[in-house]
Amino acid sequence: MDRVNIIYRVERNANIRERAKAIAIEQSVEVPLAAITKQRVLDEIVGRVERIEDLPDGAHRVTISLATETIGGETAQLMSMIYGNISLAEDVQILDVDLPDDLLAAFPGPRFGIDGLRKLTQAHGRPLTCTALKPQGLDSDELADLAYRLALGGLDMIKDDHGITDQAYSPFAERVPKIQAAVARANRETGGHCAYVPSVAGGPRKLREHCRIVKEEGVDAVLLIPMIIGLPVFQEMTAEWLDVPVLAHPGFGGAQRMAPPLFFGKLLRLFGADAVIFVNHLGRFTWPRATCEATAANLTGAMRHVKPALPVPAGGMTLDRVPDMKQSYGEDAMFLIGGGLLTARDNLLARCREFVEMVKQPVAA
Amino acid sequence: MDRVNIIYRVERNANIRERAKAIAIEQSVEVPLAAITKQRVLDEIVGRVERIEDLPDGAHRVTISLATETIGGETAQLMSMIYGNISLAEDVQILDVDLPDDLLAAFPGPRFGIDGLRKLTQAHGRPLTCTALKPQGLDSDELADLAYRLALGGLDMIKDDHGITDQAYSPFAERVPKIQAAVARANRETGGHCAYVPSVAGGPRKLREHCRIVKEEGVDAVLLIPMIIGLPVFQEMTAEWLDVPVLAHPGFGGAQRMAPPLFFGKLLRLFGADAVIFVNHLGRFTWPRATCEATAANLTGAMRHVKPALPVPAGGMTLDRVPDMKQSYGEDAMFLIGGGLLTARDNLLARCREFVEMVKQPVAA
Repeated sequence: MDRVNIIYRVERNANIRERAKAIAIEQSVEVPLAAITKQRVLDEIVGRVERIEDLPDGAHRVTISLATETIGGETAQLMSMIYGNISLAEDVQILDVDLPDDLLAAFPGPRFGIDGLRKLTQAHGRPLTCTALKPQGLDSDELADLAYRLALGGLDMIKDDHGITDQAYSPFAERVPKIQAAVARANRETGGHCAYVPSVAGGPRKLREHCRIVKEEGVDAVLLIPMIIGLPVFQEMTAEWLDVPVLAHPGFGGAQRMAPPLFFGKLLRLFGADAVIFVNHLGRFTWPRATCEATAANLTGAMRHVKPALPVPAGGMTLDRVPDMKQSYGEDAMFLIGGGLLTARDNLLARCREFVEMVKQPVAA
Repeated sequence: MDRVNIIYRVERNANIRERAKAIAIEQSVEVPLAAITKQRVLDEIVGRVERIEDLPDGAHRVTISLATETIGGETAQLMSMIYGNISLAEDVQILDVDLPDDLLAAFPGPRFGIDGLRKLTQAHGRPLTCTALKPQGLDSDELADLAYRLALGGLDMIKDDHGITDQAYSPFAERVPKIQAAVARANRETGGHCAYVPSVAGGPRKLREHCRIVKEEGVDAVLLIPMIIGLPVFQEMTAEWLDVPVLAHPGFGGAQRMAPPLFFGKLLRLFGADAVIFVNHLGRFTWPRATCEATAANLTGAMRHVKPALPVPAGGMTLDRVPDMKQSYGEDAMFLIGGGLLTARDNLLARCREFVEMVKQPVAA
């Protein structure tokens, strides 16, 4: 029977063997072994401590294996088994998961992936460019006007700020058709292929309703916030509800206890994100460069049948960061600059064009 | 216009005023103020720093206010606004949220609450008793037999272990009718009112299907894992999909850095949990006693129209912890002991009865 290996960081512990055993039990049968009367449960279902290694800072790297049969290829149960109860323990962070073939096979992953996004935007041989409609508080007409001007600037994708959802001042059903029309008008004028990416969020009822509008309006792609709408909902939407590419937003993804390369790089791709936004180093957030690059590597590396997803480094990026981002991420990325374009105010069009040109230039050797 | 106050813990920062302003911007307009051309957005939508206090350990307690109009009474947007992007910042944890009346009014909260759970189980004037069916890996008949024996022991509620979902060895559609029938049989024999609480988890399709089975089988209450299924889904299910009480399981709830009294005490109640399981001090987890008691206080305290929800301290509890739990939580709680009963093996019935009797005894003065 296949087993999934889960790697945890456990804070320094004089009894690390006992602690590791306790974690293996917590994440599987969740009872003292003395309470188990069935031999098959003891043999196969109880988690196994596979390895304990010491980390340079005195903490431990503990590998636990679980029977994939306890997960059954289900998103909710996968999250429960790999980091359900033990997420409540202050000394345990999750670093990585090694998914065996039978578990991988249950997840289709991105439907479009990098190739699909390039086909949609006709952007080849270079990183894609993206910006965000901001700030919330603008009405639908103001957002549509802003989107029109950004699309004229030659960007590949324009997403809603994730804070723009269905507020009274720019309700989804009113905003999306207007912005979609504005971007289409700009595309007709420029001959470009800019895609508008509205933010879809809420409970199942609202998600269904907004997916219907997306389809009716011929919207090209959508933005979802997996941790807020729920990972099983996200997975079901990418696999079954939507037939356009999905950008994943990192909101509520509080990375400190789940290693970003695992959560943003591996799991969101597994659950079907075609592109994943994450915070780049040297922006408003303080992730180390190595963490960001490892996240991108997990998004694009080989993973059986699962298509590569596009890394989207973001979070306070400005034009002067473009050369560095090209060094870090190469061609297969999308650079997202929001406020760094909008601060140009009346010079917005020129700043957009400058951004687009910088991205098109080859990386200096 | 009403505003919601959000209180963050921010790690020691020499420029805390600037940091607080940056947090207020991140959680509202998410652009540099220079990019905002509309006066109403600057006046009302941009987050405000209301207060900065120093904490004894050198960190800061920062209060930010946001216009409730940016939230619109929607669960997903509430989470996004109070702890969306800023959850990605290593120096910011969320401590509390002060919800104004217009926002509170949008959330019905628990439909049954403490009174509803007491009515269901006919347990009055004392804490309720609860246990969990474990371990996963047992088949449906074995789980039903275990449930029968536990119900004979006089417990008020028997929940599925949250790890028991829809695995091949005990599929939901097979397991739930069998366990429900076994508990009903025990109730007929004892004259008791023990309620079986199956775990419902998955994406929307599976959730719908399992809710249908719950209804058809006349199940009395269900267990949901809000952080795993998604908070907006959880809220919609409690308000619209289900007509039985809901126990919230804390799984995956530590992946965020949210103060437990806020998340487990205030938000899950707001989103409709009738009872909330959280980890008690001195069990397998290491939350301080004060954190646990503050969580319980938030679950039961006054909150306008929102009914009190039942605190369920758990996580490695044993019979000898009962007197201490009674001191901490008083009557309005449910004590959940899982493994601590199951380790009795052949003496399970006697151990259950002992637990029930201990809970019924008055607290020593």
